[in-house]
Amino acid sequence: MWIDGLQYANWSEKIFRQLREGSVDAVQVTIAYHENFRETVLNFEQWNRWFEQYPELIMKGQWASDIGRARATGRTAVFFGFQNPSPMEDDIGLIEILHTLGARFMQLTYNNQSLLATGCYESYDSGITRMGRQVIKEMNRVGLVIDMSHSGDRSTIEAAEISERPIAITHANPYDWSPALRNKKDDVIRAVTQSGGMLGFSLYPHHLKDKSNCTLDKFCEMVARSAEKFGAEHLGIGSDLCQDQPDSVVEWMRVGRWSKEIDYGEGSAAAPGFPPMPGWFQDNRDFGTLETGLKATGLSQAEVDGIMGGNWYRFFGDSFGPVSDP
Amino acid sequence: MWIDGLQYANWSEKIFRQLREGSVDAVQVTIAYHENFRETVLNFEQWNRWFEQYPELIMKGQWASDIGRARATGRTAVFFGFQNPSPMEDDIGLIEILHTLGARFMQLTYNNQSLLATGCYESYDSGITRMGRQVIKEMNRVGLVIDMSHSGDRSTIEAAEISERPIAITHANPYDWSPALRNKKDDVIRAVTQSGGMLGFSLYPHHLKDKSNCTLDKFCEMVARSAEKFGAEHLGIGSDLCQDQPDSVVEWMRVGRWSKEIDYGEGSAAAPGFPPMPGWFQDNRDFGTLETGLKATGLSQAEVDGIMGGNWYRFFGDSFGPVSDP
Repeated sequence: MWIDGLQYANWSEKIFRQLREGSVDAVQVTIAYHENFRETVLNFEQWNRWFEQYPELIMKGQWASDIGRARATGRTAVFFGFQNPSPMEDDIGLIEILHTLGARFMQLTYNNQSLLATGCYESYDSGITRMGRQVIKEMNRVGLVIDMSHSGDRSTIEAAEISERPIAITHANPYDWSPALRNKKDDVIRAVTQSGGMLGFSLYPHHLKDKSNCTLDKFCEMVARSAEKFGAEHLGIGSDLCQDQPDSVVEWMRVGRWSKEIDYGEGSAAAPGFPPMPGWFQDNRDFGTLETGLKATGLSQAEVDGIMGGNWYRFFGDSFGPVSDP
Repeated sequence: MWIDGLQYANWSEKIFRQLREGSVDAVQVTIAYHENFRETVLNFEQWNRWFEQYPELIMKGQWASDIGRARATGRTAVFFGFQNPSPMEDDIGLIEILHTLGARFMQLTYNNQSLLATGCYESYDSGITRMGRQVIKEMNRVGLVIDMSHSGDRSTIEAAEISERPIAITHANPYDWSPALRNKKDDVIRAVTQSGGMLGFSLYPHHLKDKSNCTLDKFCEMVARSAEKFGAEHLGIGSDLCQDQPDSVVEWMRVGRWSKEIDYGEGSAAAPGFPPMPGWFQDNRDFGTLETGLKATGLSQAEVDGIMGGNWYRFFGDSFGPVSDP
């Protein structure tokens, strides 16, 4: 069972077919960066249309058990997430509404300070806010996973402490391996994994050592070292694949509507667009290559199976429903 | 099993307890009159809060099978409906979104012309519109019931013809018995019931012969005559109980935001408020009285059971899911 913990592709029939060719059984897709509630609903609507148009390729994923149904029918189960809490606006009641519509992951911040926590690009991380504590409690109650991929260190560690259910960093790598602002220091990863949470390894070049030139071996070696450090059962893939997106989209991701000035995020004025993916991971058809690379590191088959999807499957199963009704 | 096909109470713990005292196993509640999508979401949120606050009295109803679960746990299952298509605005994609949130009934009109059909207060009924045909198809697809209680005759007959699934008049009585503008002529009722649909009898005084002075006997006699005419299996209760609502609410129901001038609807300048309910049906504790009255007419126990809830139960079971996945 192969599961990708995060993608933000420019979805099309072509990509849905590639998901099938790559034997990706489930994927968490970002459906909001800076969208407010009403705009996010339009994105749910767009996915409803795709589910209706391509019923032989994809299906809506709501529960881990849907992945079994997807496998049995040769489809990919698509789970929804937000990279920002913007869809819930300032209304805690929208958390359950969004969960009912299918949201399963929500980042408490996207680079910047939010109403809930501090993003990893702010100069000072003041931790989880008053509202953030209430929101974590409500996300725990309904079964919406707290994702801290774009949050600051202190906010992430506090979220792991405050949350009564395991949380996730869906797409990042160890800072120790590649010191990008978005990558995570060991104590941050440990806070998340020791409380039962998950780290999804990113294949987005800005998170890789040598960026687009990172080799499969180096990437898989890093995964194997992380398995020793944090336990293989807490690791998965969160490719951050942004396939076929025009560069205007990376600008939207970075700037949204929060600034009139351009912010290059992990890019630069000289290279403002999406960076090219490594040659060995161009699209969803390359998951097999990844598995081969992981096996070559000496990780056991069970560990590789877990990292390729089994761990996300277990985590999905524990995370998406109310606590009292698992 | 007792089911009320429509209420619009000013909900409170008191009324939830009365539902239990009255052994009402399920109720369809109006959660939108003129609300747009975003406002309707706030009403879903309010119900989520009530479900959280009163888990021993009420639960969200999504499928007919939830009524069995409600009975087994001594609760009332609450199903949601709209008296106007305003929550879907001008966006056909919102139909599935609203169904996912729990909507199970939607009137195509509320007294006035809508984007979809003509209301019963318009001087000319032009029937189902171009968009209305598309919306009926989409409502059929997702399992959102078409309710024509406040629609014109032609629109209602056309809706019954166009819809591939049975439709409903959730709350009205035969015009032949009490010639109110909101009551339905025999050919209209026949169009709905002959295609498998349901008529829910209203206890709202403006729909009753002698209004608030209507006797239990006269009401039940009308039900028994309707069973002979249309078949008992197509009949249920849709009390239209608006318990504890201030008169400002009946003004909102009638005028919404469509007019700056007051419209008295079924009332008048002399009596603009909610009319007093008949003495024998004051609130949800009076369902037993209704059953006693129905039995006294000579209807069989099976017929009475059907009208008190069994018919709605069957209809809910046939109506709320996708056609292909019943």
